[in-house]
Amino acid sequence: MEPRVGYVVSVSMTLSAIAINCSLKPSGAASSTDRLLGEIGQELSKLGITMPTIRAVDHDIKPGVTSDEGPGDAWPELRKRILAADILVLGTPIWLGQPSSVAKRVLERMDAFLSETDDKGRMPSFGKVAIVAVVGNEDGAHHVHAELFQALNDVGFTLAACAGTYWVGEAMGKKDYMDLADTPETTGGTTVMAARCAAHLAGLLNGQAYPGKA
Amino acid sequence: MEPRVGYVVSVSMTLSAIAINCSLKPSGAASSTDRLLGEIGQELSKLGITMPTIRAVDHDIKPGVTSDEGPGDAWPELRKRILAADILVLGTPIWLGQPSSVAKRVLERMDAFLSETDDKGRMPSFGKVAIVAVVGNEDGAHHVHAELFQALNDVGFTLAACAGTYWVGEAMGKKDYMDLADTPETTGGTTVMAARCAAHLAGLLNGQAYPGKA
Amino acid sequence: MEPRVGYVVSVSMTLSAIAINCSLKPSGAASSTDRLLGEIGQELSKLGITMPTIRAVDHDIKPGVTSDEGPGDAWPELRKRILAADILVLGTPIWLGQPSSVAKRVLERMDAFLSETDDKGRMPSFGKVAIVAVVGNEDGAHHVHAELFQALNDVGFTLAACAGTYWVGEAMGKKDYMDLADTPETTGGTTVMAARCAAHLAGLLNGQAYPGKA
Amino acid sequence: MEPRVGYVVSVSMTLSAIAINCSLKPSGAASSTDRLLGEIGQELSKLGITMPTIRAVDHDIKPGVTSDEGPGDAWPELRKRILAADILVLGTPIWLGQPSSVAKRVLERMDAFLSETDDKGRMPSFGKVAIVAVVGNEDGAHHVHAELFQALNDVGFTLAACAGTYWVGEAMGKKDYMDLADTPETTGGTTVMAARCAAHLAGLLNGQAYPGKA
Repeated sequence: MEPRVGYVVSVSMTLSAIAINCSLKPSGAASSTDRLLGEIGQELSKLGITMPTIRAVDHDIKPGVTSDEGPGDAWPELRKRILAADILVLGTPIWLGQPSSVAKRVLERMDAFLSETDDKGRMPSFGKVAIVAVVGNEDGAHHVHAELFQALNDVGFTLAACAGTYWVGEAMGKKDYMDLADTPETTGGTTVMAARCAAHLAGLLNGQAYPGKA
Repeated sequence: MEPRVGYVVSVSMTLSAIAINCSLKPSGAASSTDRLLGEIGQELSKLGITMPTIRAVDHDIKPGVTSDEGPGDAWPELRKRILAADILVLGTPIWLGQPSSVAKRVLERMDAFLSETDDKGRMPSFGKVAIVAVVGNEDGAHHVHAELFQALNDVGFTLAACAGTYWVGEAMGKKDYMDLADTPETTGGTTVMAARCAAHLAGLLNGQAYPGKA
Repeated sequence: MEPRVGYVVSVSMTLSAIAINCSLKPSGAASSTDRLLGEIGQELSKLGITMPTIRAVDHDIKPGVTSDEGPGDAWPELRKRILAADILVLGTPIWLGQPSSVAKRVLERMDAFLSETDDKGRMPSFGKVAIVAVVGNEDGAHHVHAELFQALNDVGFTLAACAGTYWVGEAMGKKDYMDLADTPETTGGTTVMAARCAAHLAGLLNGQAYPGKA
Repeated sequence: MEPRVGYVVSVSMTLSAIAINCSLKPSGAASSTDRLLGEIGQELSKLGITMPTIRAVDHDIKPGVTSDEGPGDAWPELRKRILAADILVLGTPIWLGQPSSVAKRVLERMDAFLSETDDKGRMPSFGKVAIVAVVGNEDGAHHVHAELFQALNDVGFTLAACAGTYWVGEAMGKKDYMDLADTPETTGGTTVMAARCAAHLAGLLNGQAYPGKA
């Protein structure tokens, strides 16, 4: 059989990223999630990618599953910023072993992408790559990855190898990531891989978009 | 800031896929999972990609988390076939709203990839793209996607946009996917997108491998 | 060995229940979750148990994990009503295969129970029984049960046999539970069992509280 | 409204428990799960309850969802022992943040309970109480609780307050529970509560069975 997949890609672009911190606490309050997001941002910056961070709870994201829930809804502006970036970094703390209610709210609002497809069936998020960053005192990171990978993929995001990074302490512990003197090598190494894999894939997809349906 | 991500990719390759059917029933017994896998295979074949299917339960995959659990272990041969393909299609039925024990066994054996990295920290699965196919009488597909996306990503696989396809019937129903006269347009359309997105991404990654750590 | 577990229980009490509807839509907007909650309420009323329903999104439940997040926080009043009841019925729609952000918010606020134990290590929710009611157009009910069972149990609730009831339509369907002419026998029968089992267990625990630690 | 729930319960019984260790390693190989199960057993024994432990992987539990999968199937004997006990303690290690394939196999076989109901709609597991015990080097316990709580409840088990106990180490750690010099107070205290709550509830249900449907 003849090869049917063939590409010539020549890419020289500046990629961009955006991070959403889904902490329950507003800006100003220290956040372990912020520390991990900062570490991802630092790694992305080495690749020439800037990554501003938005604290979701600062904004009045209305409940609902459309792209605009009316007067006072902060989502339309956030949505615009998310879709302007090549890489979405979604950061959340763990509560009861699960993602925060704020992370869930952000995902719910992206549900609208499912019906905003182009004539090739492609959502506005197609070609964008997501990274998931999770911190907690103890236990829950793999599950939060699972929840967020599935929800993000459902609404069109691509997940590079090593799409998640995380830190949690020992069972029923009270230690906070933001209080660690040094970033553990384990989490640090995973963060590097997450950032580098996502950037690589975002570059490839930026140069060569998904074809969608025929 | 100067762009730091730059590629020239010239690709003209034949990609390959492999499907693992994680039904509880051995070859010979009809399988709804098989029908959905067949539909993915048909779509991939339009792109010049062949996809043989392995029924996992036919093989004596020993419990454990190494790449070879000794005499009689069927995994080393399956592992070789999985790693020879560009696209892994993991298909599982739903039981109690969760992936089958056979799917879990296959994933457990890939846990070994975590310690089989090269000098750039890349697992043997890096650059390979996974599709997850799920069928059940009722309910559970999103969760099975979540479980398998997370486990597959943990062990190095990349997930293209629309990495999962599925069919389930109404709550507490008894209908089987293999008994449907026609494939519903919903599931059919999702299957097409899953196959086309995965092929596209596997092509890109085949031409330009993840760099791994610096 | 001599029996060490011995009880004499004489119970003749009126039990009470409360339902929290975690729809994204406020009161006044029709809700499929409401229909299922109503069916549970009807079954409980046959056992002499009244069940008022609160639409959580009507109330300003602040983000946080304490029992009182300060001025304007609606949680302290809701918390009081939840803890005054013997049975908590938590109802949620499914979005992206997962519980709503509103359900997550309610659970997060109950995280505080973990540190509100008495001298026997018992949370304020000890002895209370939870039912989980889930509706969606398609897929996700088992997983929502899993998430809510775990979170509710973590914060001290007991789960009777058949602690969950649900309805979902066929994969990627658009049908709403509230639009069904008749309640399917499957969901209807499950609802009856959920209500009757929870009432039975709440009665037992009301008469004979958990002893807690020695 | 008149009270409609009334009981007189006089209980003086010896309760029994059984533990299933779902380690991937056979008897003889040291198991962290075994240590945690042993600690539960010790606590139950203080209440006069004996708890033998079965290592599931020692037995040839065939794939399938009926109560007897034919010649060589070890399940019918295990099923009998599970149903003879008042308390089921299901113990599993964590792999990739999820329950072991062996735990999944055991749960799949209990799927058959769903169609083995009596004339009141009660499964053979009705009135039995489950405890879930989870250990891993790192992360995953809450999710394994969620998966097992939901699956066990689906097949008829009751979950007392604090139905799960667990230990996991810090993110991406390598420490094993069986190598800890002392049991941490956190896990130890949770184990005590899990055992005492389950015994209490099993005693109540033993004296006063679920009524099932009218």
